[in-house]
Amino acid sequence: MANKQGKKRIGVVAPSRCLPKAAATAVARHIDDIFDDGSLEVFFHPQCFHSEGHFAGSDAVRTAAFLEVANDPGIDAVWFARGGYGAARLVHDLYDRLGPGARDKEYLGYSDLGVLLAGLQRRGIGRAVHGPMPIDITRENGEAAITRALRWLVSKDDAGLEKTADPSAMRVAFNITVLAHIIGTSSAPELSGRILMLEDIDEYAYALDRSLYAIMTNQAVASCAGVMLGRISEVRENDPDFGMTPEDIVQYWCERARVPYLGRCDIGHDADNKIVPFS
Amino acid sequence: MANKQGKKRIGVVAPSRCLPKAAATAVARHIDDIFDDGSLEVFFHPQCFHSEGHFAGSDAVRTAAFLEVANDPGIDAVWFARGGYGAARLVHDLYDRLGPGARDKEYLGYSDLGVLLAGLQRRGIGRAVHGPMPIDITRENGEAAITRALRWLVSKDDAGLEKTADPSAMRVAFNITVLAHIIGTSSAPELSGRILMLEDIDEYAYALDRSLYAIMTNQAVASCAGVMLGRISEVRENDPDFGMTPEDIVQYWCERARVPYLGRCDIGHDADNKIVPFS
Repeated sequence: MANKQGKKRIGVVAPSRCLPKAAATAVARHIDDIFDDGSLEVFFHPQCFHSEGHFAGSDAVRTAAFLEVANDPGIDAVWFARGGYGAARLVHDLYDRLGPGARDKEYLGYSDLGVLLAGLQRRGIGRAVHGPMPIDITRENGEAAITRALRWLVSKDDAGLEKTADPSAMRVAFNITVLAHIIGTSSAPELSGRILMLEDIDEYAYALDRSLYAIMTNQAVASCAGVMLGRISEVRENDPDFGMTPEDIVQYWCERARVPYLGRCDIGHDADNKIVPFS
Repeated sequence: MANKQGKKRIGVVAPSRCLPKAAATAVARHIDDIFDDGSLEVFFHPQCFHSEGHFAGSDAVRTAAFLEVANDPGIDAVWFARGGYGAARLVHDLYDRLGPGARDKEYLGYSDLGVLLAGLQRRGIGRAVHGPMPIDITRENGEAAITRALRWLVSKDDAGLEKTADPSAMRVAFNITVLAHIIGTSSAPELSGRILMLEDIDEYAYALDRSLYAIMTNQAVASCAGVMLGRISEVRENDPDFGMTPEDIVQYWCERARVPYLGRCDIGHDADNKIVPFS
């Protein structure tokens, strides 16, 4: 859906950590290259470049920027700039402050932004989408990730969609560690009947196992359609060796939870991260 | 409570990681020194010394050892050998397999063993107690921790009890990271009316904040009497600086959850870790 001028307008905000200006510049330059027909306008909210301790500005600043962009009826999609922790600290009544302008919109991001994707999906506000963020431009082959994200946002180009899952199935996708922290809260995603896709990076095997304990023993998981495993990259060395691969671990917990394990899927903390629109 | 010979019998098992034999030997020697009247017998189950990958034996081996000692009416207390992750993987119907012999007993440990302390307290089985474990003999001044644990188990010597909290208040104590993973499961502790004491070690500030998000936004916390903060040791360096101390973080989340913050308490991953019998 484009606004009345036929141009697609995307607003970028950073509910977690700040976006380096060089990354925003590189994304803007790439957009000029691939959308030279003026069909796309990407607006980086100045909050993306704020920095306060760990975060892209205070909780109040990050909340205000998100609400401003989400509630703006002239903006077609909210694109989250970067993960890294912080979305959980937005104001507690965030969703009550989302008006009609926030409903007919996509919200695209992953990793720490799973907190907001889950909260939006749980409440049926707009459409939460798991996929690349502006910060991914800094990865090797990162321009492909940016192209994939924007082509999907602008024209629903399905070339970038995650395609290993049954196409008729409802689905959600999360970082394992992030979901483990959401699952017991009032912003836990609705998992009933959905395929749950999981990915992670830079964790110890025992910590992945512990996160899967939190996820797979929560009663919300019992009704999901099954679990698929994306890429688990840069697993930290366990001492002693953990004795199970990440896929072994996921299969173990699926078996305990009596949830089908449906195999591998095509998401991860990398430039190949495919797009998963939640349903 | 001692058994019929007037001798207190304590069984040691390791539901998480294995106990080095040298640690068990040092504990046994220390017991000979401080309980030279034969009033105490400590039995190290051979499972403590098993090792399989990360764990002190397979899930089945760890489960069987725990059930054997817990269900033995001739054993007065179960003392957990060491934390380090693994208790979450004991068999899913563990508590259904605990018979009458398991009820009139203390269960002493901390850190990863919070999983079992919570599960026992939630179901009213025996008495869960947060305090030193045999592995603590390897800490500097660790013998004091062992003495404290055993004097309390043998004679309810209250010298080792945590004393900063209101003595009339019910209480529980947990490692922050471990509780964040328990809170959404069917083995979440009963927090209603209790003071919740928290401690942690070797985590990034952002990870502590994220764990507190999981804990403090879970509805189970709303009814607790308040939160007290033990020691948070060896905080990993955040890049950039997180901008809040661990106490700032706990106060922030207490305020958001509208739960009273009741100040510091005397528990932690160290030899000074005091004893907190759950209620």
